[in-house]
Amino acid sequence: MKLYDLELSGNCYRVRLLLSLLGQPVQLVNVNLGAGENRQPWFLALNPRGQVPVLDDDGFVVWDTLAIMTYLARKAGGEKWLPSDPKNMARVMQWLAVMENETQYGLARARVIASMGFPGNLEEAQKIGLRVLGILEARLTAHDWLALPHCTLADIGCFPYVALARQGGLPLDDYPAILRWIARIKSLQGYVAMPGV
Amino acid sequence: MKLYDLELSGNCYRVRLLLSLLGQPVQLVNVNLGAGENRQPWFLALNPRGQVPVLDDDGFVVWDTLAIMTYLARKAGGEKWLPSDPKNMARVMQWLAVMENETQYGLARARVIASMGFPGNLEEAQKIGLRVLGILEARLTAHDWLALPHCTLADIGCFPYVALARQGGLPLDDYPAILRWIARIKSLQGYVAMPGV
Repeated sequence: MKLYDLELSGNCYRVRLLLSLLGQPVQLVNVNLGAGENRQPWFLALNPRGQVPVLDDDGFVVWDTLAIMTYLARKAGGEKWLPSDPKNMARVMQWLAVMENETQYGLARARVIASMGFPGNLEEAQKIGLRVLGILEARLTAHDWLALPHCTLADIGCFPYVALARQGGLPLDDYPAILRWIARIKSLQGYVAMPGV
Repeated sequence: MKLYDLELSGNCYRVRLLLSLLGQPVQLVNVNLGAGENRQPWFLALNPRGQVPVLDDDGFVVWDTLAIMTYLARKAGGEKWLPSDPKNMARVMQWLAVMENETQYGLARARVIASMGFPGNLEEAQKIGLRVLGILEARLTAHDWLALPHCTLADIGCFPYVALARQGGLPLDDYPAILRWIARIKSLQGYVAMPGV
């Protein structure tokens, strides 16, 4: 398997972490976004959105973290990471929707504005970020993992930008349940880090 | 089944449309967002995000369109709407990620700013909206349906805010493939409309 990747992207990190937890070897291909490689025709042919990550599994190309994580979990994760029964699949999907929305448009956006000089409304992003941290803290006060009694795609999906929240000006000191959950994820067999996590 | 609903929400419409296509009867419960019903404790107990739609299927409560659509497709849709094999499931998920991102933060946001007086950056929302319309037009020029050779959750998911794009100041006259796709969806057995579509 080949992963078109960017080391500092939390979206790419999610996939690298899942691959490692699944014990799947992968060849990383760094895409130079600064030089606009993701806007070149060869890359847009892989992913019309021009974003990393993109996975190429022996010629089967899939873009977007939600789709890549779904593919890997169903292909190599048995019933653990994304169960096939409708109720448990929906329980995981609820939090993958939080990943796609609040962690992306709140926490991840606050990070690139506050720490990487991207343009944007920091206050608005932080407001969304604070709201999702409150929701996650409440959930993780009552449960060890977000969706099911064990770690699933829900946790791996939400983890990166929560763990990087401080880079968006949102430290986690007041979120003890989130901090315990981060520690639980870091103790999983096969866990790998990224810069800043 | 009971759906906590708002008639003018494209997110709720997606679920109503899928239920109708699946031939599943549903009891609609209107949630008065204007009066803040979605911020009341009884509603937050159903959905900590305080958003519609929420589905209650005989006591199994699931929030978020992505999760609700996944649940309904896997429970009542056989292999058609969200296939269980990893590759086809990922193909559908790619476009559900577009639904969660560009149609939501581009097209849907442009609509509430331009037509409903919500605060926000209309130009930025329209820019994201135009980008996704271009991606969809290219895809639908070469394919009848977004993910697979037949209609799936991918199409039902992206449809509402594309069909409502004009309300965000983005008319579809220059997107003939999208207009043909909209007509195909409207001709499906069980199709239901919403105001503005």
